[in-house]
Amino acid sequence: MQSSHYPTTLYISVQDMIRLVERKGLTNCLSGVAAQIERDFLRWNEFDKSARLASHSEHGVIELMPIADANQFAFKYVNGHPRNTRDGLPTVMAFGVLADVATGAPRLLSELTITTAIRTAAMSALAAHRLARTDSRVMALIGNGAQSEFQALAFRDLVGIRKLRLFDTDPQATAKLMGNLKGQGLELTACTSTAEAVRGADIVTTVTADKTNATILTPEMVEPGMHINAVGGDCPGKTELHRGVLEQASVFVEFEPQTRIEGEIQQMCAAYPVTEFWRVLAGAHAGRRSPAEVTLFDSVGFALEDYSALTFMRAAALELGIGHIVELVPQAADPKDLFGLLSPEGREALIPARIGQVVVMH
Amino acid sequence: MQSSHYPTTLYISVQDMIRLVERKGLTNCLSGVAAQIERDFLRWNEFDKSARLASHSEHGVIELMPIADANQFAFKYVNGHPRNTRDGLPTVMAFGVLADVATGAPRLLSELTITTAIRTAAMSALAAHRLARTDSRVMALIGNGAQSEFQALAFRDLVGIRKLRLFDTDPQATAKLMGNLKGQGLELTACTSTAEAVRGADIVTTVTADKTNATILTPEMVEPGMHINAVGGDCPGKTELHRGVLEQASVFVEFEPQTRIEGEIQQMCAAYPVTEFWRVLAGAHAGRRSPAEVTLFDSVGFALEDYSALTFMRAAALELGIGHIVELVPQAADPKDLFGLLSPEGREALIPARIGQVVVMH
Repeated sequence: MQSSHYPTTLYISVQDMIRLVERKGLTNCLSGVAAQIERDFLRWNEFDKSARLASHSEHGVIELMPIADANQFAFKYVNGHPRNTRDGLPTVMAFGVLADVATGAPRLLSELTITTAIRTAAMSALAAHRLARTDSRVMALIGNGAQSEFQALAFRDLVGIRKLRLFDTDPQATAKLMGNLKGQGLELTACTSTAEAVRGADIVTTVTADKTNATILTPEMVEPGMHINAVGGDCPGKTELHRGVLEQASVFVEFEPQTRIEGEIQQMCAAYPVTEFWRVLAGAHAGRRSPAEVTLFDSVGFALEDYSALTFMRAAALELGIGHIVELVPQAADPKDLFGLLSPEGREALIPARIGQVVVMH
Repeated sequence: MQSSHYPTTLYISVQDMIRLVERKGLTNCLSGVAAQIERDFLRWNEFDKSARLASHSEHGVIELMPIADANQFAFKYVNGHPRNTRDGLPTVMAFGVLADVATGAPRLLSELTITTAIRTAAMSALAAHRLARTDSRVMALIGNGAQSEFQALAFRDLVGIRKLRLFDTDPQATAKLMGNLKGQGLELTACTSTAEAVRGADIVTTVTADKTNATILTPEMVEPGMHINAVGGDCPGKTELHRGVLEQASVFVEFEPQTRIEGEIQQMCAAYPVTEFWRVLAGAHAGRRSPAEVTLFDSVGFALEDYSALTFMRAAALELGIGHIVELVPQAADPKDLFGLLSPEGREALIPARIGQVVVMH
């Protein structure tokens, strides 16, 4: 019996992930995850897809996001609690798992808070790379919270953005962002309103957290040729755009059945025309059709992006020797004898799990 | 800012759980989980319930089982892969999480393979305690795999079973069970067929693993006054009972919408009468109405039972000082500054996680 048969689970903690991103470089992580998302989106029809399962409360939402192909099952646990920051907690926290479809054994347990910020930015930049005008250099960034720096750097590296126009209702958030992005090759301008930030921008990214039907962006702010990257509106009752903005734009989405429930298009009728972005990658849809067209990526975050991010992070962890083996499920010598594990003799039948050691799998 | 604000996560590994069950005693775990299930089932209407999300493949099924009340969100990851044992892997592996609804912070990550066997047996025994004849002493146990000893001991302790009549298509499984239960106050008889095992039994427990529409139990085997505890049939295309058995019995289920999809009653029309078991506990339904009535608990396993089991195991772990703190989500000084964690200075803002230490929360 080979030890590879045993369901060892690699665990990547927050500390491990910080080390991984430091050693790999954030730019390489952003471009690597974007490339993995592109590869996986081109296999769109190989995936068993469903809208995520959301549990809403007055405080926020907790979601489970599963997806599978013939080989791997992935899921993410993620919350969204806009008032968390008042209590010193992140708005969004996440972790996720990759498991073997053939056996059900969990093979990777990873933090996904940092990773979600990376994959969301990678997805946004991948979409903008295909949908924005190729001469886009100026981006308005509305909402300067936990995800904003990742969006800024992904658009710098993958889209060619050089100037950022920033606005947040919390000036300290903007100050934090400007501090973090100093010396990163981006010209930064703090603005006093969304309208001021958006004026003259090639791309507008909205990444705000309030769980309300907000109208961060109104029709008169939208200029011909703009690409709008709407990230913050991502659950029922949580939108960022005035419906007039949608009416001016060609709308692209990740997974249509989920976005109808959660995206900006929840404001529109069920037949409102949208294009799934994978069709642009696959060459089945042209994407942007003219320099004056307004394009809109109505992003809500889809499980396949987490599948891709988990795949990338696992490969990076194994390459760098980062992570630990944990005993999340038993590795018994006789799999029919679960009870035997509870007896002193039976316990010796536990396969030594080498917990705490980093091992290279596959 | 109090440290209790930070989303520390307690982790209970397989090794930890073995130690916990050893120190607490399996009997106390079975009765403690049963008592917790009863308390939580009596709060039935406080829970946000949904049928579990299943991902099927040719090899088996992977499921996510979420549930929440106003305070806690729980979910379980669990697989069912009948052919796993041929490769030295358990058929069923599981782990689960408890999180705060108010913040979304995961507070407990626990193995649930051993725990699922305990909670399934506790649920079965709790149901039989209300549905079987009070003078039940003999139980047929069909299927002698990983869950069978837990069923046997729960029925000994909570229902008063003293004699077991055993059958499995794999004689080694029966031999293993008999070895494990030696000296436990149960009279054990190995039988050569299901019919032989069932004859004269007060209670029949079926806990087989094949993912087929099997007919382990046929109508002519059923005797007046029997209670049938059908555990193994728990997903579409996986049943254990001939439909004629259902027609003779009063059928009790956990959560009707899920059992219609997954239980033995998937064989029947959508209007086939069933009673949710919580109504018996709440006194809204009598349960067994005569000594000759055939009662059937069509068990598939419901998320609320895992919520209860996680609640019990967390309390036991904190009482005994078992488990470790893991850094599944970040604990930053500035929750809006996720990016800052990736810089050398920012990393100092990480709250020391005291990883590896057992701490008592609350």
